[in-house]
Amino acid sequence: MMKIKRPTLIIDESIARSNIRRMVKKCKDSGVVYRPHFKTHHSHEVGRWYREEGVKCITVSSVSMAHYFAMDDWDDITIAFPYNPLEIDEINALAAKIDLTILIESKAAFQHAHQHLTADVNFFIKIDVGTHRTGLEMHQIERIKSLATAESRKLHFKGILAHAGHTYRARSKEEILKTHEEAFEVMKKIKAELPECKISYGDTPSASVLDRFEGMDEVRPGNLVYYDLMQSQIGSCEEKDIAIALACPVVARHLDRNELVVYGGAVHLSKDQITFNGQTIFGMAVRFHEGKWEILEGVYMDRLSQEHGIVKGPKELLEKFHVGDVLGILPVHSCLLADMMTNQVTLEGKKVTKMEKI
Amino acid sequence: MMKIKRPTLIIDESIARSNIRRMVKKCKDSGVVYRPHFKTHHSHEVGRWYREEGVKCITVSSVSMAHYFAMDDWDDITIAFPYNPLEIDEINALAAKIDLTILIESKAAFQHAHQHLTADVNFFIKIDVGTHRTGLEMHQIERIKSLATAESRKLHFKGILAHAGHTYRARSKEEILKTHEEAFEVMKKIKAELPECKISYGDTPSASVLDRFEGMDEVRPGNLVYYDLMQSQIGSCEEKDIAIALACPVVARHLDRNELVVYGGAVHLSKDQITFNGQTIFGMAVRFHEGKWEILEGVYMDRLSQEHGIVKGPKELLEKFHVGDVLGILPVHSCLLADMMTNQVTLEGKKVTKMEKI
Repeated sequence: MMKIKRPTLIIDESIARSNIRRMVKKCKDSGVVYRPHFKTHHSHEVGRWYREEGVKCITVSSVSMAHYFAMDDWDDITIAFPYNPLEIDEINALAAKIDLTILIESKAAFQHAHQHLTADVNFFIKIDVGTHRTGLEMHQIERIKSLATAESRKLHFKGILAHAGHTYRARSKEEILKTHEEAFEVMKKIKAELPECKISYGDTPSASVLDRFEGMDEVRPGNLVYYDLMQSQIGSCEEKDIAIALACPVVARHLDRNELVVYGGAVHLSKDQITFNGQTIFGMAVRFHEGKWEILEGVYMDRLSQEHGIVKGPKELLEKFHVGDVLGILPVHSCLLADMMTNQVTLEGKKVTKMEKI
Repeated sequence: MMKIKRPTLIIDESIARSNIRRMVKKCKDSGVVYRPHFKTHHSHEVGRWYREEGVKCITVSSVSMAHYFAMDDWDDITIAFPYNPLEIDEINALAAKIDLTILIESKAAFQHAHQHLTADVNFFIKIDVGTHRTGLEMHQIERIKSLATAESRKLHFKGILAHAGHTYRARSKEEILKTHEEAFEVMKKIKAELPECKISYGDTPSASVLDRFEGMDEVRPGNLVYYDLMQSQIGSCEEKDIAIALACPVVARHLDRNELVVYGGAVHLSKDQITFNGQTIFGMAVRFHEGKWEILEGVYMDRLSQEHGIVKGPKELLEKFHVGDVLGILPVHSCLLADMMTNQVTLEGKKVTKMEKI
């Protein structure tokens, strides 16, 4: 591993690639298109790991992210975020170059896009399958149909799209599958009314535990490239599938209260937390050893401030770490950690670039 | 105000400057040095607002941040974070150019710095006055004395430093003052044993509510440049003193459940939350109007995902906002919001640069 000086995101490339490969194979076996969400990593390099497995189209969560990946030759991109009229110029610039798909969920958004688009753009209607964040619900079927059939020279209806984000509330495979079935039922009912429409689907929990994808045209799970403690708690993966860890210099020891202080805080890990055996934690500690990491049983990130992290655990494990050593932290939520860090490398020390925040 | 296209941090420069001015005056009246913490804004421009008020020395929370401000001619910097041996090369590079102060709290850290420093560096001993994050406690007075009197050619003892972070748990002026008195008592006791030592102190809550600073040589509050809902809840400021808001495009309306969806989520605001009238919120909504913002009573950020924010409130207020409009959000914690955003401008539309994450 490279020499660590300050908080550094370490990616286990072989775990990440095998997480990608597993999902690519499942999609191929199910005969559905895999359009992974790239908001988890927003990195050209990591995107290429998908491309090497045959992935040709992607999902992003902002117009800026679509631009970033278009620069690396991705030419079929869905922006899975409600259409933002204020970015119409940037959307037109993209649509002139690539095959672009946007989300529409209201007549106001449709009308704006219809009037201002200067190049062809496809759209999905966003469906609310129970998460209640965005989208139209089944009882609004007339509105859905009217959007699907509205005339526009540049704006073309492609299908319906949902993100069953409420599978994140599950805490077992069975709960994920139950939530998934109820949620997907909504999509099937709408499809019955609009037989020609495509179905785009796929949160990481259900995509991870389903044996195969039935009734979908494409799936979009993205978190699985890295996974995290949340996904392992939900039941989407095991801890051994987690592909990133934050390397943190140890800067102080307080063994009298079974604590180490590390350089690595809320500006690196975010304040995402999880309850684990009755204990709220901000991450789980690992030890870097022989080009890998190993979980330090019972050692966890107990609390965070802006740059400080307080690690707690059995004294006999903590006392092996001295000021100047490096400890790793497996994240609760990899998307936020990866968003906040620009300093990232693979376990072999290869620099992994990332989209700049704009 | 400039044209907003995507989440943008808006700074009310006149509020920020008056927050700075108030603290500068209080320090001058008390005869103490003001060494503001710059981690809140990490911006050259905002730093210059302090300089224009006569501030000459600053505090930062990382070696990287010290480098960033040294580039803008700050030549007296304290890194208020435990000494990180892994950054010794960067510390030496800084110490060769500027008047640098670091924090030491253990013999191991002292020994490392003593052996590896190639230029003069001052140090404060970090004291734990009750926060239990880092630092030595009163009962470790022998260790404190032994560090204070240890011989070193390059490393020079300056005094004791504390951050009473537990004042953040207060919920009124009286609670802040009570916590402050207990905490500061520790500093006074140590000073009695080490009469020559300087005292560096200053969390934003106590610095905001104390009428004057007694028994301190310097104070370091930094959050006050922007303040936030947390500080207003603690009792450090009023809502009218909050100097930053996140401008968020409205992308969807769900008036049936009294909600708007905005482009602005956890990657912008962080997941810092606060309980307000029994309601957990992630920010309070404002309306931009005639070059200022006004609080929208009862409208708040109810929940967040990565890029989405869900704003709740009385329907008669929400229905005035349409897809394509912009809503502002006052942050729960300004330090994290400012850390995450690079896209920032003043209310007048002046771009405000910021340190790049490294």
